[in-house]
Amino acid sequence: MKLVFATGNKGKLSEVRKIFENTSYEILSKENFDSFPDVIEDRETFEENAIKKAKEIFEFSGIPAIADDSGLIVDQLNGAPGVYSARYAGENCTYDDNNNKLLQELSAFPEPHNAAFVCYAAYYDGDLILVVRGELKGMIISEKTGDQGFGYDPVFIPDGSKNTLAQYSAEEKNKISHRGKAFESLKKILSKMEL
Amino acid sequence: MKLVFATGNKGKLSEVRKIFENTSYEILSKENFDSFPDVIEDRETFEENAIKKAKEIFEFSGIPAIADDSGLIVDQLNGAPGVYSARYAGENCTYDDNNNKLLQELSAFPEPHNAAFVCYAAYYDGDLILVVRGELKGMIISEKTGDQGFGYDPVFIPDGSKNTLAQYSAEEKNKISHRGKAFESLKKILSKMEL
Repeated sequence: MKLVFATGNKGKLSEVRKIFENTSYEILSKENFDSFPDVIEDRETFEENAIKKAKEIFEFSGIPAIADDSGLIVDQLNGAPGVYSARYAGENCTYDDNNNKLLQELSAFPEPHNAAFVCYAAYYDGDLILVVRGELKGMIISEKTGDQGFGYDPVFIPDGSKNTLAQYSAEEKNKISHRGKAFESLKKILSKMEL
Repeated sequence: MKLVFATGNKGKLSEVRKIFENTSYEILSKENFDSFPDVIEDRETFEENAIKKAKEIFEFSGIPAIADDSGLIVDQLNGAPGVYSARYAGENCTYDDNNNKLLQELSAFPEPHNAAFVCYAAYYDGDLILVVRGELKGMIISEKTGDQGFGYDPVFIPDGSKNTLAQYSAEEKNKISHRGKAFESLKKILSKMEL
């Protein structure tokens, strides 16, 4: 069965294709269409953004669609940067701008700065909406470390690790990532429901 | 298994209890708790409102929650009144105010005024969100007819019928209703997933 993944990000696409390898699902994406909508993520919650993307891509393609929305939530900041993770320091900001703003905001609080990366993965087929959550718990450290990954990876240490996510290889990161967990759950549910 | 239905409406509650009769699900609601949150439906889509209600009731009760959001969508009005169905003519308006506004808006368009009642039923258990849609297609007529039901029932004729929904008994209406269909679907999916 075909599923269209609502993403223009090749890294995400290959990660999700890997998860659906050796199943009956074939993952299509932007590259399989002449045009592909760029969905605006303007909702207040991760699940709403993920559903919005899956719906718009289903309406565009007529094929059951999957999508995700992800971000960092920090306990001491009441869940910020949350749905604004990609543009925490403003529109068109860099990863470094975001990390600097995060460390600045956290400088007022004692350590440890507990945090989690979360991913909400959604499925929509015109009749049914499914959303599942994947999470990677850890803490924010005040010194940027490592040069792999992207986003908040240089300041995030997963629970049980001594290294930041930016010190993980892509493959190691995928094994434990919030996105990997969310799409693994989604795959299991789709199989169980025979969708 | 217990499910908490996010509603303060006794009519809805008895309708949904009837659907889950003779299953392993026991439907709790407002009457089973000392206090019960009144969730504000301020989202842009039915599914977002339904999810919001289910989430807030799950967070309050710690028990898997179900909720719905429903409304009328009229083709010639680009889907209006939609999520604003209950307050189309303004906050604290009556059903009659809403019907009058609807007929006024439609007077500029030729008949038939195709429309549908839709219901989005949501489930949330802290890990998984499920939403299904139930629909009742029909048309809006320009003369209010019948005194049963509520809301837009007096101006809505279901496809294949000659009567407005306000001429149906509660029992007849439940058999074909958008809400009945949505919760029947939800029940089937929950059973299939062994939730």
